[in-house]
Parts: sequence; structure tokens; C-alpha cells
Amino acid sequence: MDHKDWVRAELKKLGESLGFRYLPGEEMEQRLERTRKEMAKRNLEAIFVIEKMNFYYLSGTSQDSYLFVPLEGRPLLMVRRELERAKVESPLEDAVAIQSIRDLPSLIQKYYGKLPQTLGLELDILPVRDYHRFLDLLPGVKFIDASPVFREVRKIKSPFEIGLMRKAGEIGRDVYLEARKILKEGMTEIEFGGLMEAAAKRYGHEGLLRVRSLNYEAYSWHVLSGPTGGIVSQSESPMGGLGLSPAFPVGASFKVIRAHEPILVDFGTCSHGYQVDETRMFSIGRMSQKFIDAYNACREIHDVVLERVRPGCDCEAIFLETVKLGEKLGYKDSYLGPPGLQTRFIAHGIGLELNELPFIAQGQSYPLEEGMTFALEPKIVFPGEGSVGIENTVVVMRDGYEILTPVDQDHFEV
Amino acid sequence: MDHKDWVRAELKKLGESLGFRYLPGEEMEQRLERTRKEMAKRNLEAIFVIEKMNFYYLSGTSQDSYLFVPLEGRPLLMVRRELERAKVESPLEDAVAIQSIRDLPSLIQKYYGKLPQTLGLELDILPVRDYHRFLDLLPGVKFIDASPVFREVRKIKSPFEIGLMRKAGEIGRDVYLEARKILKEGMTEIEFGGLMEAAAKRYGHEGLLRVRSLNYEAYSWHVLSGPTGGIVSQSESPMGGLGLSPAFPVGASFKVIRAHEPILVDFGTCSHGYQVDETRMFSIGRMSQKFIDAYNACREIHDVVLERVRPGCDCEAIFLETVKLGEKLGYKDSYLGPPGLQTRFIAHGIGLELNELPFIAQGQSYPLEEGMTFALEPKIVFPGEGSVGIENTVVVMRDGYEILTPVDQDHFEV
Repeated sequence: MDHKDWVRAELKKLGESLGFRYLPGEEMEQRLERTRKEMAKRNLEAIFVIEKMNFYYLSGTSQDSYLFVPLEGRPLLMVRRELERAKVESPLEDAVAIQSIRDLPSLIQKYYGKLPQTLGLELDILPVRDYHRFLDLLPGVKFIDASPVFREVRKIKSPFEIGLMRKAGEIGRDVYLEARKILKEGMTEIEFGGLMEAAAKRYGHEGLLRVRSLNYEAYSWHVLSGPTGGIVSQSESPMGGLGLSPAFPVGASFKVIRAHEPILVDFGTCSHGYQVDETRMFSIGRMSQKFIDAYNACREIHDVVLERVRPGCDCEAIFLETVKLGEKLGYKDSYLGPPGLQTRFIAHGIGLELNELPFIAQGQSYPLEEGMTFALEPKIVFPGEGSVGIENTVVVMRDGYEILTPVDQDHFEV
Repeated sequence: MDHKDWVRAELKKLGESLGFRYLPGEEMEQRLERTRKEMAKRNLEAIFVIEKMNFYYLSGTSQDSYLFVPLEGRPLLMVRRELERAKVESPLEDAVAIQSIRDLPSLIQKYYGKLPQTLGLELDILPVRDYHRFLDLLPGVKFIDASPVFREVRKIKSPFEIGLMRKAGEIGRDVYLEARKILKEGMTEIEFGGLMEAAAKRYGHEGLLRVRSLNYEAYSWHVLSGPTGGIVSQSESPMGGLGLSPAFPVGASFKVIRAHEPILVDFGTCSHGYQVDETRMFSIGRMSQKFIDAYNACREIHDVVLERVRPGCDCEAIFLETVKLGEKLGYKDSYLGPPGLQTRFIAHGIGLELNELPFIAQGQSYPLEEGMTFALEPKIVFPGEGSVGIENTVVVMRDGYEILTPVDQDHFEV
């Protein structure tokens, strides 16, 4: 059978029968309209989108492609692999094959009628070597950083996107329910994390968590027990864990989980690219009062933040209030990390990537807006002993918030 | 307890007791020496290493760092997070804290005595925005692309590295053994893939596979059964599978695995950052003769390639020979993909990343060298029906090769 014929005849219904939700045309038009508004503010005649999550956001497909979005006129999807599949997945009307980036000028000339005078590129992630190729291919075009356009547009989630995050949250809920049955004394951290991940995948978790960064890698199996919870590592997180080797020095390790230890499980899940992040505490038998008290402090800080959450509330002000509260509760030297290594954020925006706007953090003085989504994660760290924390993913509503991670907030004693 | 004190007193022995193999100082010196030779060829007075796998290779740590490597004099590791841990992990003598990239010029002045005239940067992955920051911070310095240095140095693996790949291969062997017990009719592809991954993690697989690319993502759960095996997707691979959504349109899906289908399992594993890649065929009950024959053809091509493998053999010539052989065996329109979508490689170099040198591929005319490692993967694709293939990771030896993925090469009928 011809592959093209098969894809045209079968792929869409196979996908739909197995849970695929394709991007609706109307949703895509709204995203493009908001993108064009941000482009106009920055004098961008067109944007050339190369990064997968940005073109997935605008086109509905993550096939290997480039997307040309002019301020006026229809976008053009140029697909390296696989064109027929991209046509099935995307509501865009214009999709063509491209063999090589060298064909770019002629394709743009053909579909847009000319080369744009100003062209936006995602300079936050575009490698220098590729940039130099664009400079050679499109002489006379003025290149402008388009990454602020995407940061602005993607920071507000639509009801369609929030629905997909709610779906990811349901996967997470089911995983945390099952985790209580999986956890046994004598397992290693990585065994427990791996089995949680297997459950998550069975429920539809896509496995990879995405983050917009050269070196930062996200993953689901962040299971830290007792002393490994007290270890800081490479990431801008209050605690990093031991990991499995110096090449992966974060998250679950071969350490055996013992009774009465605090077990911190920070386990993100993903559906259709949309992620939620959540943390809960487990213990086998009772954990010591020190950790119970600290966990209750985290919950208090978490709840105080949620009381503040509504459109217009300043992100930095919320963060600084939590620092005072952490100190008042007796955790000055352990809130968000040990002395000298304390992080300066309590929430990160989340969606297709784990480091979107907003950040509830020092130096981030701007208002929350309706439709923003963030993962709120107060944590307390005791070196050599362990750590505790809670984390939920939240969407800002017109008059408050909704929690997208509906997991029981008590700590799980199994 | 103070975090620094705890790390200094406890971290190394905790890691060693849990299987960490730290980079030996002698191994590091050999890598640095080879790096300096490549630098000298390219008139690089120094390299500033920012990408995690490159500085892990040279320093033994993947803590969030920059590494300054002068042609003459000792390297300087500048660590953002976490310095004490980096000192435990790396045999480098000079490691200091850095708060911000703005401190870079003064730190280099202090330790190197001056700014270098030419400085290598990894322009294959360095984002434009960061590059512009370097241009501002270090005026007068001439920047040169250092990525060819790393491609050259890392393409030959040392006995220490091959030992770690052998360890990854042992994990893979145990996973494939266990997979035969896991696989049951009626499971979804993603359930089977998730359980294989949980087993792999329990054996020490680090979970993330790394690839040097802006958009390409690697993952372990590439389980394709029957018709999903016939689907091409975004990646430069003969078949991509359906995946779980348009945001992750590759690998295992919610499709239920049926008896008698060909089940292709391409499952990479990783230890200490070192990866091996391997593919085997499974079926529940007998798969049809068409697929058995095609699998035998893949094995024949695989074995012919291995007969050729020794230092000096030309990569492109091997590839072209396999194309002829595929045609002779009757698979002209299905070898390495369906017509119009056939890939033009049969092996990719592998190590810390999945796309290292060498490529046994069209247009890659250079000799194999002793110590090169690659994943050899002849595959045959039938759209609408399924695909078959075999893959092993191999190291080039002085007089032949060694297979690093010691899994039985027959297809697994369960």
C-alpha cells in the first residue's frame, strides 16, 4: 500500500479512535490573531517559526517543519517530514514539502510574493550556526527576536488548553492514587519512580516533559527519600536529589526507601504536550514530627498564596510575602533550600513548557492575568535529613483560581 | 546541618555505595589532551564550554557550569549550581562559583591572566541571544565555532567509555529478557513500553536519551505493533509510529497489541550518560511469513555490514552496499522506509548523544576508526501493515568489532 494513501484514508480516524484531540481551526485562528497583534507591536512583517512547541502551538502539528507567519496573509507550513501527516494534523490550509532550508527563499517568494523586510526568529533558542545560514540565505532581511511574541501569547491559556491541562491533571491524580499501592519498604527510589511512570504512561502521560533551555532537562521520576531529599543539585530547585550518576545527578537514585523517612514525589504529567506539575509527600509508617510540621508549613504558605491569586495581583509581592511567612513559621534557614542555596521563586508558569510566564519570584513584578497557569511549590529542605513540599498546578480565574491537579493534599502515609 | 559540610563529608561515599563511577583523573587528562590537539589545529587559544554533555565529557560533572579550557594552562570550572557537588564529582583542580555570566570576563582575567585572542564556542547549539551576550561581554575576542573539536574528540571512545556503554548494554539485555515476560495480548503499546521502561530504570537506565538537536527528542518507549509500525513521522527514521497525540506523534500509542502482529521494540538504554540503542522483534504467537522473511533480510543486511566493519572501511560504501542488498533481497520499496520516504542511513554514531559520528549513510564518505561506536539498524517498512528491524550497538575494534548489546538476535515469539 502507498504510505500517502494510507495516511490520507486512515490516520485521522485511527488517531481519534485512540484519544487524539486535533487542534480546532477556530482555536488556531484565535492563536494566530493574538500572535499577529504581538507582531504588529514589534514591527514584525513576518515570523519564521522553527522551534517545535511554538509551531505546534500555532499549527497543531509537531511534524518536522518550519512555519512562516506573515502579519498579513495566510501562514505557510513547510514540512520536512512527514507532509501528509502534518496535513492531517493541522487545520492550516497551506502546507508544502521542503527538502532543505536552501529552498526557503524561493518558497517564501512563491507563496508570499516577496521577501519580508523584517523577519522574526526565535533568538532565545535558535543556534548561532543556523542563524548564520539565515543571514546568508536572506540577505537584506532585517532579523528581529520573535521570542517575546511567543512568551506573551502563550502565557495566557485558552479554555481548550486548560481542558488539556485538566486532562493531564486527571492522569496525575490517577497516578498518585496508584502510587499509594505501589510504594513498599525496601524499594529503591528509582524502582518506585519507574513504576509510577509506567502507571502514568498507561493513563496517557507522554513521558517527556519539555522545558525551554539549552541544558535544563525535565523528567517525572523526582523521588527523594530521607537524606537524598536534602541534596541540592544542578537545577534551580530547592532540592535536586542524588540521581543515578554524575551524568544524571538529579531525581531518583538507587537509594533504598526506608520506613519513617519523608518521601518527596515531584511528578509532572503531560497530555497533548500540556503539562501539569505536582508534589506530594509519602511515608511508610509515620514520618517524624519535624517533617510533619514542615509539611504543614508548606501547606500554609501554599494556601496563603492561593488566597492572593486573582488577576492584578503582583507576582513579586506574593513571593516576598511567602519569604516573610516562612521565616515567621520558623523556616528562615530551610525555606526553598539551605542557606546560601535558597531559590528565589515559589511558582513557575507551565503549559507546553515548564518555564513559561508567570514566575512568582523575586524580580518578577508584574500582575497575574486571567488564564495564566503556574505550578506553585513551597518546599523546605534539611541537609542530611530530607525535604518536604507540596505543589499544585493552578489556573488564574476571573475571581480567583482553579486547581488543575486534584490530588488529596494530605500527606500519604502507607 | 550545613549543606556544604554534608556534601564534603558524605556525598562521594553515598554515590559510590549506590553505583556512581566518577571520572578518573587520568581519563580526564587524556580527554583534555586530545581536545587541545584539535584546538591547536583550529587556532583556538581557548574554548568556553557551555553545553552539558561537552563539559561532562571534559570535567566529569554535569552540575550547572561553564568550563574554560585554555590551550595552555589548567581548565577552570565555573559553577552556578552546585559548586560543592561539582568539586566532589570532578577531578579538575580549579572550580569556582559564578553567579552570573557577567562575572565571566573578570574570572577569566583572574585565572588566565588575560582574555584569549580567539575563543571557541559551541555554535552548533549556542542560542543567538547568548552569543550576543558573549559578544558584548568580551569585545575584541574573536569567536570561532568549537563544535568540530567536540565532534572529532568524542567520536573515538576510550576503554573507560566503552565500559560504561557495555554496562548500558547489560541493562538493555536484562530489559529485553524481562520484556518477554511482560508482553501480553490486549496490552496497549504504551503500557508495554512503560513497563519495559520501569524495568530498565530498576536496572539503572537513566531514563532520558540525549540527542544534539533543537527539535529532535529521543525516548525509550518506541513500541510499534502491526499498522502503527507502518507509519512514518517527524523523525529521520524509517518508521515513527503513532504516538499519544499530535504533540508527541512518535513511539508507543494507545493501540492494543494483538496476537500475530509484528511488534517492533526499539529501546535505548543509558548508564552514566552513555547510551546504547537496540531493536528486536516480538510477536504473540506466530507473525506472518512476510514479516519473518523481512526480519531475516534485516538480519542478513546487519550481518553483512558487520563483516565489513574494521578500521579504514568507508562508511558511505557500506551504506550503498546495503541498499543494493536490500534490493536484491526483494525490498527495494520497503528498505529503510516506504517509497519517497526512505531514509539514507543505516547506522548512527552513539555515546553521550544519539547523533554522534560516524554515520553509515549516503554522503558520509570517511573511514571507520578503532574506538568508534555506532547503532546499526536495518529496517523494512510496509505501510498499513507493520515494520520489522534489528538494531545493535557496536564498537569498532582493531581487527573487527564487538557488539555492546548482547541480546539474543532471534525474534521473540511469546
